Amino acid sequence: MSSRNIRLLIAYDGTDFQGWQRQPQAPTIQGTIEAVLQKITRGPIALTGAGRTDAGVHAWGQVAHFKTLSALTPEKWQSALNALLPPDIRIRSVQEALPDFHARYDSRLKTYDYYLLKGGWPAPFYRRYSWWIGQPLDFNLMGQGLSGLKGRHDFSAYQTAGSDVSQTVRTLSQADLTRLRRGGVRLRFQADGFLRHMVRNLVGSLVRLGMKKITLGQWQDILVSRDRAQAGAMAPAQGLFLRKVIY
Amino acid sequence: MSSRNIRLLIAYDGTDFQGWQRQPQAPTIQGTIEAVLQKITRGPIALTGAGRTDAGVHAWGQVAHFKTLSALTPEKWQSALNALLPPDIRIRSVQEALPDFHARYDSRLKTYDYYLLKGGWPAPFYRRYSWWIGQPLDFNLMGQGLSGLKGRHDFSAYQTAGSDVSQTVRTLSQADLTRLRRGGVRLRFQADGFLRHMVRNLVGSLVRLGMKKITLGQWQDILVSRDRAQAGAMAPAQGLFLRKVIY
Repeated sequence: MSSRNIRLLIAYDGTDFQGWQRQPQAPTIQGTIEAVLQKITRGPIALTGAGRTDAGVHAWGQVAHFKTLSALTPEKWQSALNALLPPDIRIRSVQEALPDFHARYDSRLKTYDYYLLKGGWPAPFYRRYSWWIGQPLDFNLMGQGLSGLKGRHDFSAYQTAGSDVSQTVRTLSQADLTRLRRGGVRLRFQADGFLRHMVRNLVGSLVRLGMKKITLGQWQDILVSRDRAQAGAMAPAQGLFLRKVIY
Repeated sequence: MSSRNIRLLIAYDGTDFQGWQRQPQAPTIQGTIEAVLQKITRGPIALTGAGRTDAGVHAWGQVAHFKTLSALTPEKWQSALNALLPPDIRIRSVQEALPDFHARYDSRLKTYDYYLLKGGWPAPFYRRYSWWIGQPLDFNLMGQGLSGLKGRHDFSAYQTAGSDVSQTVRTLSQADLTRLRRGGVRLRFQADGFLRHMVRNLVGSLVRLGMKKITLGQWQDILVSRDRAQAGAMAPAQGLFLRKVIY
């Protein structure tokens, strides 16, 4: 019996999880799905995700794959998984993939969204899914700052200190700001890859630009400096969504 | 020193509360806000709301009033309350009201929204704020059913059994269905008053119509019957929002 390669498209509310990656003592997305897969197949199964989201980060379109000898159809996999998973993790679709498909290595582009809210008070319904800023933000200035980020750059300044990635050049194909109702914005970033905490570090500095704590020139200098110490504090996890993985 | 009458506009995520009304041992919206008011003024304060929402029901625009001898300005009240309240309750605005303003007795109209989602799987981000129906729903038929509800009717059939309200005639000035992205709908009901569980009972029967478990004729008969036993099961709390109170 030959092994099959099953591909999952997954949405999750990361609020109550310690991120994607399996940990012995803490609830994680990977660990929770693996436990359910093992319950279904009565054997150990390893799940590989396209990206490791941090504690509190959400996903609308995480992709993962696992190998199995089970003969379950994709439809049966989806209904069995959704029946056993907690409601904050949902399997959007299941497909049988080619034998060598790899969710992480084969990904070409990833899209992350970050939601910012401003105004006098944070709406209770959005607090798990956005970063509320209680002061004026200049969205035009932030949009200008973002447009300068597009293209191929060394993003070292926006990598969290202590990361050991040697190659820090990434190509940002999208860096857009879209205004939402009720005075919020969605920031969308698409790239061939992201350094550790890159989106949250970018958003943290961008908010300083929007608050006019730094100028557009200083914002541009951060990227050029390649120095983490130049960038602002990291934005909180709850505004960040892994939106899409493109293969 | 004469007593002032302070009016609050309140939004809350009802998920983790046992409804609006104060209870000795359970967390409620009224009880939580009263405790904070007492902390601010160092004396007992009673808060009167426009409507008593049930456990798990949310509000975007609940209105309440309280009397106080405190000289705090509305702005100070708002910032003090929002600083001390949990993040799932937010004070949207504070106004000094006329001495005889009463949040419940003076309300002329209330608007409730109910969010329904359909499709293959419920999005994790909406699960706290909507009712997901895992089967096809005929929204056109539901819209037709709703339009027949408008006007002045005896709504006894949609009152929860055991209610002791003698006057069960209400005037429904709005009963609309609006399609949302991702295959959801918002049902909006506006009336001069609502019987106990009336919106959730209406939505429960309307979903049976949408699933074609009952016909449009049977749906119309429920209202005419004035018999609670004719209506379907009550819709769950988490899809319901007290949207607005009009004075």
